[in-house]
Amino acid sequence: MKTQTLKGFRDFLPLEAKKREYILDVLKKVFTSYGFEPLETPTLEYEDVLTGKYGDEGDKLMYRFEDNGGRQVALRYDQTVPLARVVAQYQNDLSMPFKRYQIQPVFRADKPQKGRYREFLQCDIDTVGSDKNSADAEIIAIAAKSYELLGFKNFKILLNDRAVFGKTPTKAIMIIDKLKKIGAERVKLELKQNGFDPAILEQIQKSKTTESLSLTMKVAARLGTKEQNLEFSPTLARGLDYYTGTIIEVESPDYPYGSLGGGGRYDNLIGMFSNQNYPAVGFSFGFDRIIEAMTELNLFPKDLNKTKVLVTIFNLELADKSAEIASKLRVNNINTELWLDPDSKMEKQLKYADKKNIPYVIMLGPKEIEKNCLTIKNMKTGEQIESTFEKIITKIKN
Amino acid sequence: MKTQTLKGFRDFLPLEAKKREYILDVLKKVFTSYGFEPLETPTLEYEDVLTGKYGDEGDKLMYRFEDNGGRQVALRYDQTVPLARVVAQYQNDLSMPFKRYQIQPVFRADKPQKGRYREFLQCDIDTVGSDKNSADAEIIAIAAKSYELLGFKNFKILLNDRAVFGKTPTKAIMIIDKLKKIGAERVKLELKQNGFDPAILEQIQKSKTTESLSLTMKVAARLGTKEQNLEFSPTLARGLDYYTGTIIEVESPDYPYGSLGGGGRYDNLIGMFSNQNYPAVGFSFGFDRIIEAMTELNLFPKDLNKTKVLVTIFNLELADKSAEIASKLRVNNINTELWLDPDSKMEKQLKYADKKNIPYVIMLGPKEIEKNCLTIKNMKTGEQIESTFEKIITKIKN
Repeated sequence: MKTQTLKGFRDFLPLEAKKREYILDVLKKVFTSYGFEPLETPTLEYEDVLTGKYGDEGDKLMYRFEDNGGRQVALRYDQTVPLARVVAQYQNDLSMPFKRYQIQPVFRADKPQKGRYREFLQCDIDTVGSDKNSADAEIIAIAAKSYELLGFKNFKILLNDRAVFGKTPTKAIMIIDKLKKIGAERVKLELKQNGFDPAILEQIQKSKTTESLSLTMKVAARLGTKEQNLEFSPTLARGLDYYTGTIIEVESPDYPYGSLGGGGRYDNLIGMFSNQNYPAVGFSFGFDRIIEAMTELNLFPKDLNKTKVLVTIFNLELADKSAEIASKLRVNNINTELWLDPDSKMEKQLKYADKKNIPYVIMLGPKEIEKNCLTIKNMKTGEQIESTFEKIITKIKN
Repeated sequence: MKTQTLKGFRDFLPLEAKKREYILDVLKKVFTSYGFEPLETPTLEYEDVLTGKYGDEGDKLMYRFEDNGGRQVALRYDQTVPLARVVAQYQNDLSMPFKRYQIQPVFRADKPQKGRYREFLQCDIDTVGSDKNSADAEIIAIAAKSYELLGFKNFKILLNDRAVFGKTPTKAIMIIDKLKKIGAERVKLELKQNGFDPAILEQIQKSKTTESLSLTMKVAARLGTKEQNLEFSPTLARGLDYYTGTIIEVESPDYPYGSLGGGGRYDNLIGMFSNQNYPAVGFSFGFDRIIEAMTELNLFPKDLNKTKVLVTIFNLELADKSAEIASKLRVNNINTELWLDPDSKMEKQLKYADKKNIPYVIMLGPKEIEKNCLTIKNMKTGEQIESTFEKIITKIKN
């Protein structure tokens, strides 16, 4: 019997799944504080809805098949095209501007490699229906607040305006966009090889920020974004066909292995299914990259494990008492696991608590019954004391 | 351009998506309070892992296809077979008992009809590796606490023990299981038509609870489950092939349109991929049914809308001030939406707040600047007063 997962697909055992939940809790809290609301779309769509929207490469990497009813269907490839469909399909029901977050897995039949998966969670915020700089600023402010609350110290929100590139040909912009990856010398070489004047690079590098981007940055600051987190980056493009105004990318010098997220203004996309045009600006958090970075930089809280106590069982006779204690701890808002097997040795129960990183263990044997107390063991220090239920509550809560 | 979803697949616009998030928050809180931890498995599995595990019907309803690499793959059909795979694949990494929750969409190419979808969220808790009654009791206690916290008043947790059926043939049990749906007369008729003594029904109905089930119910009570929520139901079977001990089903007389969840002990399933046997007990919350019931019974909190304030913009000149107020409200933990367009009429902004059910609107015009105050409007009562920022914070928080 095969017990393997498909290449590029992952199981998340509790340790990893808890990291994922932690990040999502933080992000949702920030999104909600800005009035953004959740949206969910189906995993499967009519193939027609998705094909042709992501270029040839996208069509190639898309999971597509014929369903049992002979319909051509495809798995979610991103969350922007479904958003465009939703905006067209429910235009009378949605209030504009429509500020939504969407956090669902997407599927790409890409070559799996380090950090690249065939199923991965996308985590997007977008404002549809506003062409104002304040919309861009708000997206930037939410991104900044999110990385800050996740614990990133030195992150930079790189910003550019598509207008900075003026009439520079697309091909040349794509080469200049690689500056960080390949360095100035190779950019110039590639520009030359492609028949462009290598001096364009320096011209672009010397560009000043546009009036529009300055305004956006000013509003972001009013919304609480720290200036040291914002940086004008005139060579930033991130796939020019897509963005029409602001371009955003987040990176951290503490984790120089790629960007932690990106986005920008894309005014010509969301109207693709309707007769109307919808200006839009959004940001996509690089979920897997963020987990990697936070793991390496030790940014996850120590008590990611939410279980605070294991209540052990001394023997069958005292099992009821242990169950009652567990129940009382939960009533006091303490997450408590109860050992289930009255025949287990105490050693086995302590080992379990240790392996699961449960910080406290409560023991309740004949001695404790006689003295009308409980024994609590701190699994980190090994300290073990007898105490009353009330004092134990206080101890665990602090 | 098609802007439609596939039959049996759904978009969840913010109003519905917020209901879903609310329920999941409540459930996860309960699961966590019992020490249960999250697990996630891939949407796609090797077809071999899933086929043959759900019977002929399951194989027929499964979404299966050949991926771009020529692999036969299938979409997640439930969360129990993936759990069995995980237990086999990581047996050395998992601490036993393994108490996990899993909340992911599953896919079934079933005929769509009211309340039946082709993609729907499953929400499961399972304890693997314990054959003790306390494991069953804990699952029951978690279910009870969950429905209670979701606001259900009169729910019943129907309980049975597979042993109650003794040597009754499977076919007869399946007929008796339909008692609630079709009534005693038709059950007896069907029993007779299938060559069974119709008197079996009454025999089963008169059965007493088993010693094991009594113990389970006793422990559930110790864990805080109210006796009035538990009911022995000797005719309950829920697909006998699966369950080996306790059988659980939850229903509410206030919502008589089907069960709100179900589960039980299944000791012969989780070992399917390994040489070892793993006793297990679990419960699956009927997520869509719960949403339907809570909507009809009015159990969702009134402030499901988490945005508390819309800060309006009087004109371009005062836009900065509004942004600052919005930012300050957020610093005070008040979820705040900021209007984005400085050219909008106040009427339009108020309409937006009204449509989105935002309870308060803050206005800041030249009059307020002069008086050094803010105007706050209660959107429900229409009351509109001038006040200081500090007083407004207090007002909104209460």
